[in-house]
Amino acid sequence: MDVIEQEIHVTFRYPVHFTTGLFAASNRLLRDLVGAAEGGAARVVAVIDRGVQRAHPGLTDAITSYVAHHHDRMALAAPVLVLPGGEQVKNDPDHVTQVLDAIHAGALCRHSYLIAVGGGAVLDVAGFAAATAHRGVRLIRVPTTVLAQDDSAVGVKNGVNAYGKKNYLGTFAPPFAVVNDFSFLTTLSDRDWVGGLTEAVKVALIRDASLFDFLEAHAAALLDRDPAAMEQVIRRSAVLHLRHIATSGDPFEQGSSRPLDFGHWAAHKLEQVTQHRMRHGEAVGIGIALDSTYAHLAGFLPEPEWRRITGLIMALGLSVYSPALSERLDTPADPSCVLRGLAEFQEHLGGRLTIMLLRGIGVPFDVNEIRTDVMIRSIEMLKTIEAGRADTPRTKAS
Amino acid sequence: MDVIEQEIHVTFRYPVHFTTGLFAASNRLLRDLVGAAEGGAARVVAVIDRGVQRAHPGLTDAITSYVAHHHDRMALAAPVLVLPGGEQVKNDPDHVTQVLDAIHAGALCRHSYLIAVGGGAVLDVAGFAAATAHRGVRLIRVPTTVLAQDDSAVGVKNGVNAYGKKNYLGTFAPPFAVVNDFSFLTTLSDRDWVGGLTEAVKVALIRDASLFDFLEAHAAALLDRDPAAMEQVIRRSAVLHLRHIATSGDPFEQGSSRPLDFGHWAAHKLEQVTQHRMRHGEAVGIGIALDSTYAHLAGFLPEPEWRRITGLIMALGLSVYSPALSERLDTPADPSCVLRGLAEFQEHLGGRLTIMLLRGIGVPFDVNEIRTDVMIRSIEMLKTIEAGRADTPRTKAS
Repeated sequence: MDVIEQEIHVTFRYPVHFTTGLFAASNRLLRDLVGAAEGGAARVVAVIDRGVQRAHPGLTDAITSYVAHHHDRMALAAPVLVLPGGEQVKNDPDHVTQVLDAIHAGALCRHSYLIAVGGGAVLDVAGFAAATAHRGVRLIRVPTTVLAQDDSAVGVKNGVNAYGKKNYLGTFAPPFAVVNDFSFLTTLSDRDWVGGLTEAVKVALIRDASLFDFLEAHAAALLDRDPAAMEQVIRRSAVLHLRHIATSGDPFEQGSSRPLDFGHWAAHKLEQVTQHRMRHGEAVGIGIALDSTYAHLAGFLPEPEWRRITGLIMALGLSVYSPALSERLDTPADPSCVLRGLAEFQEHLGGRLTIMLLRGIGVPFDVNEIRTDVMIRSIEMLKTIEAGRADTPRTKAS
Repeated sequence: MDVIEQEIHVTFRYPVHFTTGLFAASNRLLRDLVGAAEGGAARVVAVIDRGVQRAHPGLTDAITSYVAHHHDRMALAAPVLVLPGGEQVKNDPDHVTQVLDAIHAGALCRHSYLIAVGGGAVLDVAGFAAATAHRGVRLIRVPTTVLAQDDSAVGVKNGVNAYGKKNYLGTFAPPFAVVNDFSFLTTLSDRDWVGGLTEAVKVALIRDASLFDFLEAHAAALLDRDPAAMEQVIRRSAVLHLRHIATSGDPFEQGSSRPLDFGHWAAHKLEQVTQHRMRHGEAVGIGIALDSTYAHLAGFLPEPEWRRITGLIMALGLSVYSPALSERLDTPADPSCVLRGLAEFQEHLGGRLTIMLLRGIGVPFDVNEIRTDVMIRSIEMLKTIEAGRADTPRTKAS
């Protein structure tokens, strides 16, 4: 016996709930989720996003009252912790330490709960701390943005930035539960309202042409902040993301392919070179437009479908181009050049470069090589398209 | 649709190899493990334990030469990193940062390799860094102590200490591979040679009475540093640990029971209150003696089997008692009192207190309550036994 082959099977289960008014005393969802700990009420620590707190000044009190009302089931084990929102929170390791300090001060155990309320960045920081304290305390994610509700918060990852690289540190750690509370969406800026839709466009393009049709048909209503249309998009996008993770065969990304990252190599780079002035959703919109244009120019994607894709992104009030795309294209290895994002994407995933492209809407495939000349032509084409739409209706920030 | 129930299945596979002379140029094991990365040699960073380096002064050169010899398959991506060994390395978060710095400097990706050579503490620090960089680069563990080879390094956990608590931070992260190289054992101190055997005693007690018989029959040979007996114990113990993890149904410890931690609630506390002057293996020996004595006094474990258990620990040259057990027994909540370890164990696991006891050798069962008076009588009984064996052969440090 010179080798033992070990094989381990691990099953993770978690619910994704849809509700409104999660912290109203009469809403029993959270109470039922937490359940009764053996020998007393479950210990709970809450972390909230400062941006959400500003838009909902009563939130801390509402959480405190909710927990007090359901004191037979749960008890706050530490004061509510408020973290700055947005990508910047992921740049400073001290924020992870703050969450760990609260988990420790609250004497949370693996069967206690960290409830994180906020945008994807705050959920990522809280999630990394929750995943590593005691090798994992239970995390209940309450995403408050379109982007987090339709994509990032329903998944199995967390991450913080390090060495100037997005999500350099993190773990694969499924949450205990996710609660999408639609009432948080009403206070989003127009920019965050539409920005989160690009992840729905992405998952439609790689998995569900009928969702793409729905987005096209309801683009004006979505831009006009129609809540019913938005709820439907979020539910369908969340289902597709969840199904992909459960059925891909590689939920913890041990291989090289990463379909849910369609359009993301450029997006991650654009966020980085704009020091996150461009938000993730906005960058994903441009990344989708770029890889779709590349697929078209490389002869894979027919023109009518390519026009529908760029058309939908613009109809949602989003950009298909940013001047950051055109920086230093003569020196692709320069850290300011978007093309450098291909190498960084490959390093993060490992293995061979694997980029998803499209042959049609809902028809993805992988390539292992990207032609620089064709990518540069794609950028130039998007620049021309963006310049030609000066009179198109847009949201304020785009 | 107000809830989506997500279910994810993840499979992890890794080999545990047994060899000697891993870094001899002619040993092709590591070369074959690493394989060829797409488009070139795999990037490798090596971390070694300073204690191992002192005992094997040529180790860094041997690793460098090995990699150079197999340059078609692998390349060192950063200088070999040397970390202090022993539990202290887990107390300073800067050591995790050093490993992360090396991973980043070497531009490792998820398909690159961190090779960690050392005792369990260094493997834990390197493992935590490897598990979180890019959400996981490939970790090859090369454990160099009996304790790491027969137990900790073949498992799925890593951890570092924080807030004064052992393994407060960590993740569940199966390695890419484990290589048990017996040649590292020859330079161990007598103390580390026998100390690691207590984890084999533990796994025998909870899973395999025939391994217990083997340990009894070969106790004198083991104490006398017979390599063949030791190799057999390590192989059998590693197999039992691996099988338990694979078949327990709860490899990532989402429930409250933790059979592999038999005897460990007291052991963790003893390590802490002695500031790790007592090593993990030594503390586990006392922890096993204590919980076996408790099981006997509480009427579960017959006297003949209890005597065999304490007898084996002593026959291996190890202690069944430490004065630290008797500290502040009148105030069980005092942080210096070993009984406080029950609450800390429960907090780390979460849920209801669950302690494994024995009805016989190889016949474990769980209890949810520990009677303080019976535990104190168990401590007093072990004190008497230890005092009565002044003339028994012992290793230097016990």
